[in-house]
Amino acid sequence: MRLCSYVQGEWVESAGAGTPLFHAIDGSPVAEISSEGIDFGAMVRWGRETGGPALRRMTFHQRALMLKALALHLLQHKEEFYRLSRATGATRDDSWIDIEGGIGTLFAYSGKGRREMPNDHVYIDGAPETLSRGGGFTGQHVYLPLEGVAVHINAYNFPCWGMLEKLGPTLLAGMPAIVKPASQTAYLAERMVRRIVEAGILPAGALQLICGGVGDLLDHLDCQDAVTFTGSATTGLGLKQHPVIVANAVRFTMEADSLNSSILGPDAGPGTPEFDLYVEEVVREMTTKCGQKCTAIRRALVPRELLPAVGDALGKTLDRVVVGDPDLEGVTMGALASRAQVQEVRERVEQLRRCSELVHGSPDRFEVRGGDPQRGAFLPPLLLRCDEPLRHREVHEVEAFGPVCTLLPYDDPAQAVELARRGRGSLVGSVFTFDDDFAREMVLGIGPWHGRLLVIDRECGAESTGHGSPLPSLIHGGPGRAGGGQEMGGIRGVLHYMQCVALQGSPGRIGRISGRWIPGPDPVPDPVHPFRKGLDELEIGQGIVTRSRAIGLEEIERFAELSGDRFYAHMDAQAAAANPFFEGRVAHGYFIVSAAAGLFVDPAPGPVLANYGLENLRFHTPLYPGDSIRVAFTCKQKTPRENEDYGEVRWDCRVFNQRDELVASYDVLTLVARSSGDRLAAERA
Amino acid sequence: MRLCSYVQGEWVESAGAGTPLFHAIDGSPVAEISSEGIDFGAMVRWGRETGGPALRRMTFHQRALMLKALALHLLQHKEEFYRLSRATGATRDDSWIDIEGGIGTLFAYSGKGRREMPNDHVYIDGAPETLSRGGGFTGQHVYLPLEGVAVHINAYNFPCWGMLEKLGPTLLAGMPAIVKPASQTAYLAERMVRRIVEAGILPAGALQLICGGVGDLLDHLDCQDAVTFTGSATTGLGLKQHPVIVANAVRFTMEADSLNSSILGPDAGPGTPEFDLYVEEVVREMTTKCGQKCTAIRRALVPRELLPAVGDALGKTLDRVVVGDPDLEGVTMGALASRAQVQEVRERVEQLRRCSELVHGSPDRFEVRGGDPQRGAFLPPLLLRCDEPLRHREVHEVEAFGPVCTLLPYDDPAQAVELARRGRGSLVGSVFTFDDDFAREMVLGIGPWHGRLLVIDRECGAESTGHGSPLPSLIHGGPGRAGGGQEMGGIRGVLHYMQCVALQGSPGRIGRISGRWIPGPDPVPDPVHPFRKGLDELEIGQGIVTRSRAIGLEEIERFAELSGDRFYAHMDAQAAAANPFFEGRVAHGYFIVSAAAGLFVDPAPGPVLANYGLENLRFHTPLYPGDSIRVAFTCKQKTPRENEDYGEVRWDCRVFNQRDELVASYDVLTLVARSSGDRLAAERA
Repeated sequence: MRLCSYVQGEWVESAGAGTPLFHAIDGSPVAEISSEGIDFGAMVRWGRETGGPALRRMTFHQRALMLKALALHLLQHKEEFYRLSRATGATRDDSWIDIEGGIGTLFAYSGKGRREMPNDHVYIDGAPETLSRGGGFTGQHVYLPLEGVAVHINAYNFPCWGMLEKLGPTLLAGMPAIVKPASQTAYLAERMVRRIVEAGILPAGALQLICGGVGDLLDHLDCQDAVTFTGSATTGLGLKQHPVIVANAVRFTMEADSLNSSILGPDAGPGTPEFDLYVEEVVREMTTKCGQKCTAIRRALVPRELLPAVGDALGKTLDRVVVGDPDLEGVTMGALASRAQVQEVRERVEQLRRCSELVHGSPDRFEVRGGDPQRGAFLPPLLLRCDEPLRHREVHEVEAFGPVCTLLPYDDPAQAVELARRGRGSLVGSVFTFDDDFAREMVLGIGPWHGRLLVIDRECGAESTGHGSPLPSLIHGGPGRAGGGQEMGGIRGVLHYMQCVALQGSPGRIGRISGRWIPGPDPVPDPVHPFRKGLDELEIGQGIVTRSRAIGLEEIERFAELSGDRFYAHMDAQAAAANPFFEGRVAHGYFIVSAAAGLFVDPAPGPVLANYGLENLRFHTPLYPGDSIRVAFTCKQKTPRENEDYGEVRWDCRVFNQRDELVASYDVLTLVARSSGDRLAAERA
Repeated sequence: MRLCSYVQGEWVESAGAGTPLFHAIDGSPVAEISSEGIDFGAMVRWGRETGGPALRRMTFHQRALMLKALALHLLQHKEEFYRLSRATGATRDDSWIDIEGGIGTLFAYSGKGRREMPNDHVYIDGAPETLSRGGGFTGQHVYLPLEGVAVHINAYNFPCWGMLEKLGPTLLAGMPAIVKPASQTAYLAERMVRRIVEAGILPAGALQLICGGVGDLLDHLDCQDAVTFTGSATTGLGLKQHPVIVANAVRFTMEADSLNSSILGPDAGPGTPEFDLYVEEVVREMTTKCGQKCTAIRRALVPRELLPAVGDALGKTLDRVVVGDPDLEGVTMGALASRAQVQEVRERVEQLRRCSELVHGSPDRFEVRGGDPQRGAFLPPLLLRCDEPLRHREVHEVEAFGPVCTLLPYDDPAQAVELARRGRGSLVGSVFTFDDDFAREMVLGIGPWHGRLLVIDRECGAESTGHGSPLPSLIHGGPGRAGGGQEMGGIRGVLHYMQCVALQGSPGRIGRISGRWIPGPDPVPDPVHPFRKGLDELEIGQGIVTRSRAIGLEEIERFAELSGDRFYAHMDAQAAAANPFFEGRVAHGYFIVSAAAGLFVDPAPGPVLANYGLENLRFHTPLYPGDSIRVAFTCKQKTPRENEDYGEVRWDCRVFNQRDELVASYDVLTLVARSSGDRLAAERA
């Protein structure tokens, strides 16, 4: 099988002879790979000129639905991916993380895109900033998609997940991608891209694939492009210093494997649930994917007095691991990705043994169930122990990217912190404890060295997703050795492919450009009550100012009785006057917003279907008996739903008293039918 | 005057001979500068070991108040700074931007720190993420201060502002700084640092100063340090590629001057307010600070047909500019920072003249009022015009960092976009138009190439803070040529000096670590009603579950009458049932939250002083007549005020029906006295 690249909308076989790739279990040839002859500059232009504009014409919600369709399509083909995944040495469980975990990332981004982004082209970040005393000059941060291509350079260990966790945020942002999988397992990524392309769900130019080297690709990048790299620190640092990336300030994110640590608390001795959870987690991180995870636990930090107990318990659990062909019954750990990888891990273990003792497993003598022990890429779990970890650099610097972990004792909490920091920046760390003080000390002490930190205990152990699992809603990436980058983290990861721009201008104009009305000196009057307009007829900035209504003492008392809220500031003149913020009895805040609704609501059935919430309510001026209120009620933002005949409308609501002082301000959230003619309510009855 | 460095808490004079610095107006020697003999590694350690821990012991609010005290102190000394600033060639107006603008940044960060950050050590970013079906495993992003030093490398044009706009966010984050001002104007920065040190407001180690070169400083940095650079692209790119910065993933932000453009809309011909605003702004940007602003307008893009009119109007306005000694009456523009700078600008203007015509001013013949025309660094405003800007690269690439601007005609909006983009990334752009469509086309078209964009028109022109003014609440920095960095932007700029960490664990534990309670399966019961506890006595996670109350149809009708809200879903059974979300008449959402208050409020005077707002209210399940509600009310977050005997308490409020379905969820915001014993209300009466 000669792997192809997907270039400018065509599958292209390379001109030259390919590099052979071998099966991890039996050593047989699987595929050949080469990118010789590809015009990389043309790929960049195709992405920029064809893919980018097509994606940017879609709204965030349309792109989110595209991701969902893609995920559903890939799920239908999952068994094909599982079959091919065996060649990478993966067990079914390993492949599940890669294949279904990767597809799950698309589902997650589809959901987040629709829930947390507007159905529009501009993403609004934060609240508007008033920039002048008069309020006539305002600022609003927005994000716009970068207009170049995203180059994704992926690692060999998760050919599907690694590709999809980058594609989700990229496509949702509205940016086309050029994916370059690591050669060793590129056959699986290539197959998945074939299924993606066949589905016809993505617009032309949105996705291209390079099987083989990237040639002069990076020479064609500028400030509108982004490079997202996952892999070894050495390769990553080389790319980061590429003269074009530096000179053109090409956005560059790097995620490198790191020497992640997991800390057992002094309270978590044998017999505690935390002890058992710790042993289970260390073994899981050593054996899942044969330990070929950039997030795996490489350093197990345990209180010195617990070292023998932890060593024994780990040994007993590791004894049950069965290495071999994942297709065979009882096999719990497969093979590394290649013989070359086995050789590298062996060398690193030798380096580690200069300061550590091998306490479980042997790289030279181990059993393999099935597969080809000579030609397959097998290695057993290897547990080391370094008794004086503060005196040796290797244990904090040398990473054996396989089923390898080193036990490190610590003498007190400060030493645990110091040891964890010696990793000089990690993707993830974890702490197993049921002690709040120890947990907080560890989080504050090692937090700045980490991108993600778990505190595991009996309360969450059963539900924990695990030390080694990056999740789409949380950031993935860490400082220093881990590369200093950041991916995913929900919408944070989408913004990586967008430019933040601070817009300044009049509130009206900035509101119209950003798609969210900003209160300013000039409301747009509208003779038609906004409750009589469908979502498609409403325009942001349109609204009404209601009549005025007085609030009397007798009404405040009736409200107190009906609600049951007899707080003294509403009921007792003398006590209220003693309150530092009030001069006497005041109306309930809840009464103010209720009476405001009484003023702005148009009661008859119509396109407005329901009030589903309220946001950012603030009471600015107390309302005293005899004061009156009126309401400025303005359409602030519209979010039509792509597949429904209704959507969300956010209204700006400002309540003023008879002296035009602002009494309360808030956003009212409603569901509104698309059209006022389409009398949704009546017709469905 | 030999400038000193402030090293490890001591003022240190350099060992070697210094480089002389000259007065910009009369060429006389002002100071000598050298950093020879400084132990830069010891500076880094002093910052890390003395400054960092002292700052991190303070809360965000304490650090914010420290910034305010610093700003007030510096204001008292402002006239001294103004006097010294004249040597830089600045007019009083120029110095105001630098000195009072800089001090204003400290005030702004002090205010933002207290309003938008907790009075705690952990900054919470975004909402918690539920990570398991059972809800027992949760994620929360937090930010923690980096534990290294922030190295600030500043430009010569704004020695005060450039220093303070970086110091504000850095100190607020809790990170110590080492400031290295550009040599040419370091005497002003040094004077300001002397006043800062004398005030004794900052803890030891929080601030150090290097007057002169940085020697091997960067060799000592690691992933907990940050470098923030402002200056020329050439110097910046050199630093960015420094092997230690690359290898250790040292956080690096760069802000370089760029070829910013300002676009006049086709609608904004002579006679429109936008035309006049444009002419005024271009001239202001050319002459303020002698055009030595990284945000200045370098390229004025105007519709080709308006080119003559704009040229004439600019010429007439420029005719009124008086160059000379700022101390003399009538002088409106001072000198550049140095003769070397004058020489460089002259050379750049010559380069530009290869494709442009000089249409106003002459670098060789111009009048100077006062000062020393030969030894001072004078140059008049120079306006060029390039008739075919799409055919020439120089005009988009060569920056004359002085009172220089080039007029570029465009033929249609797409061409305006293309020309603006040719700058390959700018700090700021502006559009002068009263046309919504043109404004939106420009913002979407050039937005991704900019960090900040203004749309100026008659509505906001008078209140506009101007094209060239970075503001503390908005981001400053742009893609590509502008360096790809980002500073300020309110709290965004603070987070640059902190590490984002995704915490995972049980909701209870993560809530206690982060300082904000997260709803989970295990509420902490408390026999004392929380309204009876002062801020200092309350603990997050403590709360109550109220009794249950039924809501009947009669009460819904009374609520409708009292509030005036007779929306059909509450009043008309048939119409309500036709609504797609309801099965019949439902209680008002406003009634639900009012009745909930009736259940959780403890009415007698006590430490709870007022309800000042509500956040994130969502209605989850409709409440039908006959249903009942009960409320889980839990202390979520406490924000004591540093200088008051009260503070904010945020409560988590969840309303359930008789089937334990969630009816509504929201945060209640209250002001609470510090102590229940300190009966604030009663005592003050």
